[in-house]
Amino acid sequence: MNVSNANELPIGVFDSGVGGLTVLKALRDVLPHEDLIYLGDTARLPYGTKSPASISRYACQATQQLQQRGIKLLVVACNTASAVALEALRGQMEPLPVIGVIEPGATAAVAARPGGTHLVLATEATVSLEAYRRAIHAKDRQATVIELACEMLVSLAEEGWSDGPIAELIVRRYLAELDGQSARPDSVILGCTHFPLLREVIESAFDDGVAIVDSASTTAAAACDMLASMSLGSRRSGGGSLKLLATDGATRFARVGGQFLGHDLSANDITIVDL
Amino acid sequence: MNVSNANELPIGVFDSGVGGLTVLKALRDVLPHEDLIYLGDTARLPYGTKSPASISRYACQATQQLQQRGIKLLVVACNTASAVALEALRGQMEPLPVIGVIEPGATAAVAARPGGTHLVLATEATVSLEAYRRAIHAKDRQATVIELACEMLVSLAEEGWSDGPIAELIVRRYLAELDGQSARPDSVILGCTHFPLLREVIESAFDDGVAIVDSASTTAAAACDMLASMSLGSRRSGGGSLKLLATDGATRFARVGGQFLGHDLSANDITIVDL
Repeated sequence: MNVSNANELPIGVFDSGVGGLTVLKALRDVLPHEDLIYLGDTARLPYGTKSPASISRYACQATQQLQQRGIKLLVVACNTASAVALEALRGQMEPLPVIGVIEPGATAAVAARPGGTHLVLATEATVSLEAYRRAIHAKDRQATVIELACEMLVSLAEEGWSDGPIAELIVRRYLAELDGQSARPDSVILGCTHFPLLREVIESAFDDGVAIVDSASTTAAAACDMLASMSLGSRRSGGGSLKLLATDGATRFARVGGQFLGHDLSANDITIVDL
Repeated sequence: MNVSNANELPIGVFDSGVGGLTVLKALRDVLPHEDLIYLGDTARLPYGTKSPASISRYACQATQQLQQRGIKLLVVACNTASAVALEALRGQMEPLPVIGVIEPGATAAVAARPGGTHLVLATEATVSLEAYRRAIHAKDRQATVIELACEMLVSLAEEGWSDGPIAELIVRRYLAELDGQSARPDSVILGCTHFPLLREVIESAFDDGVAIVDSASTTAAAACDMLASMSLGSRRSGGGSLKLLATDGATRFARVGGQFLGHDLSANDITIVDL
């Protein structure tokens, strides 16, 4: 494969389900000429409740599917898989690059509030793996990290109930689990790809000075930087195509995914693949 | 195997996750001398968002695991699997009996309110399969059946938020999707094994005269009748053991499952199996 061909390969985006479409949407915004191929492993979602061994095996199978189709960069748009399987995926993709969602979010939070207190809202699995804590402390040993599992926010986003009193009460109930001190963080990291849909209701639960770190847009920015640092660079013209793959349930993927992507999808837009 | 040995075999209970533990609990209440073996396919939950072909394949694999360990009766404590895979499982278990959760609930609702209007609260998959509609109309052609997908109630039960303003608002928001007429049903069927945990909050959203049909207790009663009709009968002494199997995540199974079963579980109480 020569360099010019490689540059025209799509960016592969992988998630356990539809949540990673918030990352895909952010990628389209900053890299409008890149072709994108997305794989949602909907047959085995949610990864958040699975064991690390299973998550790693699933992520490697999904990546293999994208590699067979040809990609120049893999974006792991799933916090759980980023926390558990990133090194395995880097080995599998070598020498091509892999970007997870945790590192860019951690970097952005530390840059926004050096030495600050960071509140990470995430799934139970991401919290139990302490992935954000480790990523933040690797960059800023003075930082304080509080991780809070907010499992109900996932189903809230998928149901499309992203505003109104139910969303507000659920966010406030989770925050009530924090004590007074940690309820006033310097930054709040949306540490699950579903949570950018709830950004407004989450933001409204905090004081004005709090930095909200959206891991979808920080990851898209990291992909942009990565392409610029590669000899390939990013595409300046053409491209812009989108291919959506899922391992099950095209109808539900289209209905819920459309909300995440910000435009209507039909089941015919989704190709079902077997891993 | 002789009849006396067969009678001492456990009853097998299968679900996609922990929800079926409400059925297991109801079985223990009515059949205290039966040994019970429960398999939660937690590695592949939720079935509710999977395709019928996948659900059927998963259910057959889970049943095979229970058959290898020896059971005298299979209870499919999962509405989705009952709706999709019951005939396949009956073929696989023959000549031993299989009881699903839909038929007992439909029978109880029709018996409580002949010719009435039945509101079925269920997952999206159960609703889209119209399983309760078909089961009720097979028994009562005059009945009116309304099926309402309430996906958020599943995560609400798993989070343990079974009462209070959030649970009330979520139940009322789903019911607001019904028009005035159908919001006054004669019976309400809890058509997901998670929903018995939310029985009080659901019940309080309806008028006093509404019959609440809990598919966990109706299924346990059907298992009781089935054993009585078999030459084996139910056990009158000894037994009462419980074995819990899951395909992934013993820690989470123990924590969430304990709420469903009504007593504490530890991860050591769960045996992880591969299907």
